[in-house]
Amino acid sequence: MAERKLILVCNDDGITAPGIRALIAVAKEFGDVVVVAPDKPQSAMGHAITINATLRVNPILMDGDTEYACSGTPVDCIKLAVNKILHRKPDLLVSGINHGSNASINVIYSGTMSAAMEGALERIPSIGFSLLDHSIDADFSAAQEVARKLIPMALEKGIPEGICLNVNIPNVTQELIKGIRICRQADANWEEEFDERKDPSGKTYFWLTGVFRNYDSGTDTDVWALEHNYVSVVPCKFDITAHDTLGTFKTWEQDV
Amino acid sequence: MAERKLILVCNDDGITAPGIRALIAVAKEFGDVVVVAPDKPQSAMGHAITINATLRVNPILMDGDTEYACSGTPVDCIKLAVNKILHRKPDLLVSGINHGSNASINVIYSGTMSAAMEGALERIPSIGFSLLDHSIDADFSAAQEVARKLIPMALEKGIPEGICLNVNIPNVTQELIKGIRICRQADANWEEEFDERKDPSGKTYFWLTGVFRNYDSGTDTDVWALEHNYVSVVPCKFDITAHDTLGTFKTWEQDV
Repeated sequence: MAERKLILVCNDDGITAPGIRALIAVAKEFGDVVVVAPDKPQSAMGHAITINATLRVNPILMDGDTEYACSGTPVDCIKLAVNKILHRKPDLLVSGINHGSNASINVIYSGTMSAAMEGALERIPSIGFSLLDHSIDADFSAAQEVARKLIPMALEKGIPEGICLNVNIPNVTQELIKGIRICRQADANWEEEFDERKDPSGKTYFWLTGVFRNYDSGTDTDVWALEHNYVSVVPCKFDITAHDTLGTFKTWEQDV
Repeated sequence: MAERKLILVCNDDGITAPGIRALIAVAKEFGDVVVVAPDKPQSAMGHAITINATLRVNPILMDGDTEYACSGTPVDCIKLAVNKILHRKPDLLVSGINHGSNASINVIYSGTMSAAMEGALERIPSIGFSLLDHSIDADFSAAQEVARKLIPMALEKGIPEGICLNVNIPNVTQELIKGIRICRQADANWEEEFDERKDPSGKTYFWLTGVFRNYDSGTDTDVWALEHNYVSVVPCKFDITAHDTLGTFKTWEQDV
């Protein structure tokens, strides 16, 4: 008899967020689930890890099962899960479902996707799921349906070593979703607008806000897919070398 | 008369770290320097940004000039510099000199390199410098000499839009450095070793530690270059799409 699949679940919105609860419910349909997730919101933490402070992992009872709430970042959660909690390498890591988009440049700020990337580094097939709705009462049912299709597909087909998938789901009802598209990351950016305020003692402080700007008119991007009601799937890697520019810089070796 | 060059300086070890003081001294030889750096150590913060807390920027007097100490992450520093402090786009951004290696996989955890990457996103030519010595009393003189060569080269030749350079300097005296090598990021990883302890009330906590493992035998990598006393220069980009796997995943569009 085949061993039951072992699925590790993480996120960045915190272990009690509706998005991770929705993902855990789906993951349990396909195997034994271990949840190791931040004990508080850790959005936009990127690939941060905790090296100048201590880490805690507290077993808690959630929906009838023991889960692990971690004091650190999403990447800390994966490192702790792999090294201190799990007894074997999981067959799959799923992260999310994030409250809000991780398409395009959001991927590099995202704690959800950094957890998936850390999984890829550990050579665990890994997927990050994000729904294009920030609100706490977002409807995750269509996103759950997407996870219900992609989780078994990843378990069966596998994901090439060192690659993780960045899956974003448009904020529409399930009937309106046209399918999935394999995409590249759109070349877009955030135009910051710092909200400048005065504290009660008259000193200036800032809130970071911004507007998303898409500079990319390609029809093969995640932003295009999402705008056209497709689920976007971008395979991601941790080698950020700009390989196509290595030749350009070669002369620097002599000129220095 | 040509306008003087404007150089933005940041780091992740904090504005008072010896590494950034060494870099500021060199940058001042080539233009007007504006320093916006974290007011405390922000190592290993990756591409984290501050969205759930307020940000402060305090002008401080350092070495006779006004500099800006920011309460946030290295990426926050760049966003604040570009949007709230600088009156024009800088000609160059330099980040570091980091106390410790940012070669290979370290690049994705590094606050120093995330500051440089944020510069690339803002279409500012950007370089991160790191010395392979963690200690507070590291000797930065050879690293300064490297910066003294690469800063004018970047100002003259330019860096392709959207690219930043990850420069690592071996921890040897200047005479032993053989030159610079344009490299790709080595495929390496950290093998975590969590140091498990008990607090005074008997509860478990962890310190994250680890051992660097290089899986890559290539002679074109940054790790190889550094081991052979070359300065490694890796051009980096923020598009993490695994372009060469897009074809592999194409069938998923039908199979879902």
